[in-house]
Amino acid sequence: MNSELSAFFDHALPAIDASLDRLVPSESTPPARLHQAMRYSLFAGGKRLRPALSVAGFALCRPDWNDVLPVACAFEMIHTYSLIHDDLPAMDDDDFRRGIPSCHRKFGEAIAILAGDALLTLAMETIARADAFPPDRLLRVTAMIARAAGTPAGMIAGQVFDLEAEGRPIGEINVEQIHRSKTGALITTAVTAGAFLGGVSEAELEAVRVYGERIGLAFQIVDDILDETVPMETLGKTGGKDRDQQKATYPALVGLDKSRAIVAEITGQARRSIEGLGGRARILLSIADYLETRSH
Amino acid sequence: MNSELSAFFDHALPAIDASLDRLVPSESTPPARLHQAMRYSLFAGGKRLRPALSVAGFALCRPDWNDVLPVACAFEMIHTYSLIHDDLPAMDDDDFRRGIPSCHRKFGEAIAILAGDALLTLAMETIARADAFPPDRLLRVTAMIARAAGTPAGMIAGQVFDLEAEGRPIGEINVEQIHRSKTGALITTAVTAGAFLGGVSEAELEAVRVYGERIGLAFQIVDDILDETVPMETLGKTGGKDRDQQKATYPALVGLDKSRAIVAEITGQARRSIEGLGGRARILLSIADYLETRSH
Repeated sequence: MNSELSAFFDHALPAIDASLDRLVPSESTPPARLHQAMRYSLFAGGKRLRPALSVAGFALCRPDWNDVLPVACAFEMIHTYSLIHDDLPAMDDDDFRRGIPSCHRKFGEAIAILAGDALLTLAMETIARADAFPPDRLLRVTAMIARAAGTPAGMIAGQVFDLEAEGRPIGEINVEQIHRSKTGALITTAVTAGAFLGGVSEAELEAVRVYGERIGLAFQIVDDILDETVPMETLGKTGGKDRDQQKATYPALVGLDKSRAIVAEITGQARRSIEGLGGRARILLSIADYLETRSH
Repeated sequence: MNSELSAFFDHALPAIDASLDRLVPSESTPPARLHQAMRYSLFAGGKRLRPALSVAGFALCRPDWNDVLPVACAFEMIHTYSLIHDDLPAMDDDDFRRGIPSCHRKFGEAIAILAGDALLTLAMETIARADAFPPDRLLRVTAMIARAAGTPAGMIAGQVFDLEAEGRPIGEINVEQIHRSKTGALITTAVTAGAFLGGVSEAELEAVRVYGERIGLAFQIVDDILDETVPMETLGKTGGKDRDQQKATYPALVGLDKSRAIVAEITGQARRSIEGLGGRARILLSIADYLETRSH
């Protein structure tokens, strides 16, 4: 990570965490266990990639990015809810997440299901109340985030595609379709929603969308590579699990070396897409570099 | 049910069902099993109380209520998602709902969890895209529905209060608080959102809100009375289950006769609250009568 990106994260991540802390009911507000579970998973050491992308997208036009924080946090809430539900016994059945017990292991299945539901609901409420922006823009962002999180083009559809692919011969599976909907759509929308609220032109928005789509895919492929190659202690979750569950991944489909080459290629496409934005896009370019080369 | 209300339902319910059918991806759209599960639960014979209340609230000012149908349907989507998640083994563990296998019994737990998530998400997207209304009004409705469906004042909080009350001595439990958040908030918001979008005055909106709150509570108490007194075949779900699970209900707290008296009293409060609206409120008054005297 270069020093400019490092300075950006040093500034943005604490602001994102402080905003999340303000937005979620306190641990003592009844029903306390529900709010404890929401906070447990929200503050479990996530990378904050999606809200950081919203902030960086917004900063293309508006270096004063404080106004976008609630909307940025809505993306983190939706991401966190999806992890809580994905970890449930009926889904991926993961006991650990980010090095600590997953939400249902800590709070029980019922509370975990409801904490996920509540984070999704709070994400929508948070956008609806983000009164720093005109209502028509917030309404468009609400539609964008719901589409990216839902079905048939978004995250929930991707999770079903992923579940259905388990155990099937890898050659019969459209891995890119799974990644595009399961993780790509929300990452893409995080950066485009930020850029849209910041006020980029339609042409710039399309460039940012392509950037988001490319880094979203790269991000997931890197995740799958790390799952195969990095020990569990570093990963904070059960490594090698994708392979054990016969998940649809690029490493399974084309091997590690070719997967790395694909990551380099599509990260290059992401970079080129936002070249026209000039110096304003430096943080987004650095995020692309960082996602390509990250080791956990 | 009087003939005017019967005519209203004959007109409104097919329109609500047709609107739901347009809003939800078809059974053949991939991922097909997800959309089949969403439709299975949405079209399983629900009473459509919440969307009917939105339509009736809207019709206070706008007899041409077609425009409000998407928003009305969003309430039914949220209600249906809550039933799917409530029926899960980790929650109330119900095998039947409306006389047929519950969603997870039919499609498996993973798909049921995701179908619920998708209905909640689609509800929000539907409101955001309901372009018959000004964005600021839709944004306020989004905030209202999210608050009513979420925590700490809405449906998810109520479900946690309900789970936490199980097995505890009934005297220590605030049954009204559970009902108010678990079912009351969404019913109240269904009718107020409709009235708000139709264009009632602030004073009228407050009258409608009190009406919704009172019929919401009456509705739940009647539900609990029916659970104790009506055979399973009529109810379409496992009767007497509340008692077996030591659920917090009015019949358990004060007995059947006193529960019936409370229903009559709060239904009267609901009626009086909207007296000032005159003849326009006839449908809402008939709905209050119907909810008080329904037998299933």
